[in-house]
Amino acid sequence: MSNVQLDHLREEMDKINQELLKSISKRANIAKEIGDIKEKQGVPKFDPVRENKMLEKIISLNDGPFEDGTIRHLFKQIFKASLDLQSKEHKKHLLVSRKKQAEDTVIDLPDGTFIGGNESVLIAGPCSVESYEQVREVGAAIKGAGVPVLRGGAFKPRTSPYDFQGLGVEGLDILKRVGEEFGLTTISEIVDPRHIEMASDYIDIIQIGARNMHNFELLKEAGESNLPVLLKRGLSATMEEFLHAAEYIVSRGNSQVMLIERGIRTYEKWTRNTLDISAVPILKQESHLPVLVDVTHSAGRKDILLPCAKAALAAGADGVMVEVHPDPPTALSDSQQQLDIPQFQDFFNELKASGLYKSTVKA
Amino acid sequence: MSNVQLDHLREEMDKINQELLKSISKRANIAKEIGDIKEKQGVPKFDPVRENKMLEKIISLNDGPFEDGTIRHLFKQIFKASLDLQSKEHKKHLLVSRKKQAEDTVIDLPDGTFIGGNESVLIAGPCSVESYEQVREVGAAIKGAGVPVLRGGAFKPRTSPYDFQGLGVEGLDILKRVGEEFGLTTISEIVDPRHIEMASDYIDIIQIGARNMHNFELLKEAGESNLPVLLKRGLSATMEEFLHAAEYIVSRGNSQVMLIERGIRTYEKWTRNTLDISAVPILKQESHLPVLVDVTHSAGRKDILLPCAKAALAAGADGVMVEVHPDPPTALSDSQQQLDIPQFQDFFNELKASGLYKSTVKA
Amino acid sequence: MSNVQLDHLREEMDKINQELLKSISKRANIAKEIGDIKEKQGVPKFDPVRENKMLEKIISLNDGPFEDGTIRHLFKQIFKASLDLQSKEHKKHLLVSRKKQAEDTVIDLPDGTFIGGNESVLIAGPCSVESYEQVREVGAAIKGAGVPVLRGGAFKPRTSPYDFQGLGVEGLDILKRVGEEFGLTTISEIVDPRHIEMASDYIDIIQIGARNMHNFELLKEAGESNLPVLLKRGLSATMEEFLHAAEYIVSRGNSQVMLIERGIRTYEKWTRNTLDISAVPILKQESHLPVLVDVTHSAGRKDILLPCAKAALAAGADGVMVEVHPDPPTALSDSQQQLDIPQFQDFFNELKASGLYKSTVKA
Amino acid sequence: MSNVQLDHLREEMDKINQELLKSISKRANIAKEIGDIKEKQGVPKFDPVRENKMLEKIISLNDGPFEDGTIRHLFKQIFKASLDLQSKEHKKHLLVSRKKQAEDTVIDLPDGTFIGGNESVLIAGPCSVESYEQVREVGAAIKGAGVPVLRGGAFKPRTSPYDFQGLGVEGLDILKRVGEEFGLTTISEIVDPRHIEMASDYIDIIQIGARNMHNFELLKEAGESNLPVLLKRGLSATMEEFLHAAEYIVSRGNSQVMLIERGIRTYEKWTRNTLDISAVPILKQESHLPVLVDVTHSAGRKDILLPCAKAALAAGADGVMVEVHPDPPTALSDSQQQLDIPQFQDFFNELKASGLYKSTVKA
Repeated sequence: MSNVQLDHLREEMDKINQELLKSISKRANIAKEIGDIKEKQGVPKFDPVRENKMLEKIISLNDGPFEDGTIRHLFKQIFKASLDLQSKEHKKHLLVSRKKQAEDTVIDLPDGTFIGGNESVLIAGPCSVESYEQVREVGAAIKGAGVPVLRGGAFKPRTSPYDFQGLGVEGLDILKRVGEEFGLTTISEIVDPRHIEMASDYIDIIQIGARNMHNFELLKEAGESNLPVLLKRGLSATMEEFLHAAEYIVSRGNSQVMLIERGIRTYEKWTRNTLDISAVPILKQESHLPVLVDVTHSAGRKDILLPCAKAALAAGADGVMVEVHPDPPTALSDSQQQLDIPQFQDFFNELKASGLYKSTVKA
Repeated sequence: MSNVQLDHLREEMDKINQELLKSISKRANIAKEIGDIKEKQGVPKFDPVRENKMLEKIISLNDGPFEDGTIRHLFKQIFKASLDLQSKEHKKHLLVSRKKQAEDTVIDLPDGTFIGGNESVLIAGPCSVESYEQVREVGAAIKGAGVPVLRGGAFKPRTSPYDFQGLGVEGLDILKRVGEEFGLTTISEIVDPRHIEMASDYIDIIQIGARNMHNFELLKEAGESNLPVLLKRGLSATMEEFLHAAEYIVSRGNSQVMLIERGIRTYEKWTRNTLDISAVPILKQESHLPVLVDVTHSAGRKDILLPCAKAALAAGADGVMVEVHPDPPTALSDSQQQLDIPQFQDFFNELKASGLYKSTVKA
Repeated sequence: MSNVQLDHLREEMDKINQELLKSISKRANIAKEIGDIKEKQGVPKFDPVRENKMLEKIISLNDGPFEDGTIRHLFKQIFKASLDLQSKEHKKHLLVSRKKQAEDTVIDLPDGTFIGGNESVLIAGPCSVESYEQVREVGAAIKGAGVPVLRGGAFKPRTSPYDFQGLGVEGLDILKRVGEEFGLTTISEIVDPRHIEMASDYIDIIQIGARNMHNFELLKEAGESNLPVLLKRGLSATMEEFLHAAEYIVSRGNSQVMLIERGIRTYEKWTRNTLDISAVPILKQESHLPVLVDVTHSAGRKDILLPCAKAALAAGADGVMVEVHPDPPTALSDSQQQLDIPQFQDFFNELKASGLYKSTVKA
Repeated sequence: MSNVQLDHLREEMDKINQELLKSISKRANIAKEIGDIKEKQGVPKFDPVRENKMLEKIISLNDGPFEDGTIRHLFKQIFKASLDLQSKEHKKHLLVSRKKQAEDTVIDLPDGTFIGGNESVLIAGPCSVESYEQVREVGAAIKGAGVPVLRGGAFKPRTSPYDFQGLGVEGLDILKRVGEEFGLTTISEIVDPRHIEMASDYIDIIQIGARNMHNFELLKEAGESNLPVLLKRGLSATMEEFLHAAEYIVSRGNSQVMLIERGIRTYEKWTRNTLDISAVPILKQESHLPVLVDVTHSAGRKDILLPCAKAALAAGADGVMVEVHPDPPTALSDSQQQLDIPQFQDFFNELKASGLYKSTVKA
């Protein structure tokens, strides 16, 4: 007998579900009309005072069986859905999102190659630009190996004010000279919004470092630049924050942005940071921007760079960044984690031999 | 004119809100009736297949303006609320929750004092029981200072199998002798479900350690014991998991449970763990169980034990646990973080002088 | 002139370095002799009281230029090195370490295949064993695809005591029947030390779950078993703790242990846990045990299982574990993250097509 | 007999210890002389190439019993100690450290009160400056309660570029007007190095926010300002990084810096961040700068602000920051965590009643 009862109750349930659907949809349409009027008036669509009044009225009518808290929660969900519907354009569809642009963003490099699409890219170079000779030696080696992009730090954000802070503009100039000499695309970190404009006189790609991912003034200024931007994930930024940081740049007009995972801060001590490999497929799914992995800074140790680079490419990354120094023990920064030139050549040869690195650039 | 329109639309909105409230409440009542029938039949209330079918039917009727995903989300919220309503008894009101029991749980100790309520308690003793002489020396000192509870580790869960694992039952026996000699309540960690029963022959309170907070078989066994249980928060357990671990014990019939915050694992290196002080007021709010703080294991360093203990009591903790050893440099475990006896006496005197430690126990 | 001076000072420096080397080596030999005597006496080699006295004597003689703290630090390093030298056997060379055993441990499975060495393995099955029909359906599918190992949870450690706790021994029996029917190796989690012995009547491999990685009593019991053990990394265990947990098992005589990375707990919310991909090459370097990756529990979402599995194999993992359920929405646990059977087949086909999965098992 | 032997060996050990001490001290003096010459030459003291050569020479002479790796480690420790000795000035004694300045830094406020020393301070105000009326209402309330410092955000660093970014300079101007009207000291966050100079026209204290703790260009610019700076700990900055960030400001000449703990990012979800209470006594020990606690941003929920504030003061904090808004539900940012005015008054009254808030400011 109880099954007869059950069937009957389920029929009623289906009916009430339909009524709910109708009411919810009708409500959304009214909310939309209100939103349209507000838009014409230039008034913000979200009106928390009005929302509160509505909620209070609803709660005052609640006779159960739900507790007031539950009713408040359910209606807030319904309110929120209506609001999202109205602000869909920017809320649901960030400019950096796949929903806004289905096809991959591809960054054309001055050396004739590109980042994104079906090719893998390797970005290599010393942690800090220390001298013309040092950068030239690395430049020659990576050019010879078929690496298109030379990276070197000229402005170094360091934990202590007493640590080596980089050669500054002189460092950018060294990069420019070596880049031109070998036909390499160059990239360097910019840390001050006042330097973004000048950067285009020296380098081809601006890097925004992990410590500056939340430096919104720098992001905004980078959004005004005509150079591509390589944006690093913050020390403990969520993927959501990372995408919003990219949005700061893109929303200012610069759509040439690349995301680079570089490990997140965790309790684990055997690596400098924890490479968040899952971020690669998720960011590729959520966004049309190229996604790279900085294996050097995530690992913080040389001995696992190759498996980490393989994992990055296997997970779908568009490229890998690695630090190379002619003589790591004498490096002015991060001496333990940089590859020397023969180590770099082995690294890159094995990476290519794995079949995971796909490139038409010739060595 | 548009304001007239707005007012009109808002009236419609209020009406539709009321209709929604009615439908939602009606739906909940039907769900409840179905749940009652299922309960009689002994069938689980959550029926994902039926839920899926309902959702598909609703989605098939959706003409917008909401996307199917939004409708699915809203209805899942509504379904979930109905289900929560039915399983309120155990879901919303864990036995350990304030909603289930408004008044504080107070644990009566064999020495005549108690934990919980308006008194503060200090639990003190060596990390490991090493010898009768060692424990006796600490026992005498803490008794003299007016500390009611003596703690010592007999079974030591250690990271390495080659580290000192404790004296085992012999250690429990030493605790028992010293406890009886001074009229102190004794507490020691039990790590094996097979030892819970035997524990009551030796000690007055069972400690479940941080590494075993998720050892549900041990929790269940502790739930069958007639001894009070001091449950440590896991190395990186959420507060929600912590309360559920306590529920494992209480739901088996042992309501004498105390919670002890002992720091959580984070990236910060200047402390062994990060004392989560906010957990104290939140756990006190959410649960009627006594909440203590293990300042030794959270800090992992002696020099901040006093301010951490003050903070714990100021935040509302019912007590503090601290490690004391007659000769810390020779301790077989955790030698760096244990107080020696004069340091302990200073610590306790200053804590009492702060006015934050409220006790009627006489020194 | 100052360069002449510099050269002279450097010569002196080299001389003093040699003296230091001599003294340090001589000291180590004396320490060794002392250690040998103590070993014969059965006295612990580490004598903190004596060490303290030595330090105090040294400090009392210190006239600078180093501060006492620095001298204390340097001598503690020297003392520690001497001690390590004596306890090398167990300290430097855990049984699970590569230094102890250079060649890979290979686990022979009853189905004739093996884990470790040059082959990849896939372990698949439902989160919970729910019924014979359910397990049989998965068993048939994975056997058909060429997967050698069937996994299913019979004892489920759940956050809440009110959640489904698994079918227990009945679940093990279902696994056994399906395993025998299809010639599949079976694996299931054991959570109680009292069940380890009985496990061998039903299953081929014991899984120790993440919540129990620090349950040393369970590890010790597993060390007495003759079944291979798949040990999961704890929710926020370091790699060092993970290897020591394995050592608990191996040091009891059971050398058939496999390590499985399953994501660590971080602040990131878009994945259930953060898959620590760097752990794969590091664990492979440090230990001779097979290393696998549980992609389901690390990701906690279906949509990135394939890239995560590829990354795991590219990083050097010996295998991958994935959850498969005939009808995930009706699953009694973890319904959102389990693949259905066609999804599983796609997953495995694409994984094989990537060239990263190396197996001679025939589908 | 073996004890005679032991005694003899121990005597030898003591002798060799003394030789080691002599050699180590002598070595340090030579290193110092070399350092002095290099300093005159303007050459960096750390010379990794020379260090490597020395190590290789030492290793080549090593006949055991230590392995080469151990010898390398020990000598690196000795080299490092020598180097530290030479760079003591800036390495061991940061300007912000207690070792450099034993007495507490006290910040004099324009309203005649001060921060640091023996008084507690409360800083209160709305998350965002929204209008003159809003800020005036809060200003009147806090002035009436005896709070000396009014805080309001004019430049708001927000995760999304589409969220309310603050009123900018207009907001600063509102703060200035209200500050002058009530004789309150004002504080507001500056996010762009180009705004630091202009800030002194409007506000009394510059706040550097958590997201900008690693924005070294902003820190350097703040170091040139004559306004006191309230520096927030970064989202997941270590205490060491926090102190170094303060050093960036102080080393530029601005010694008026206050540190404010605001919770760190962890896995726990019941609070917005995890208030790291241990940071309070540690920072007070390590540094002479005032240490405050932002209870609002650490907790992210109103209901535990009072116990957290009490804990902060009990742990030794010099003050507490809390957000107050006349009508939190309508706030343009962080509406859920701000106190309304009556809640604020209760909060402050109870904090004062606890005896932990020590102030001579009259309400």
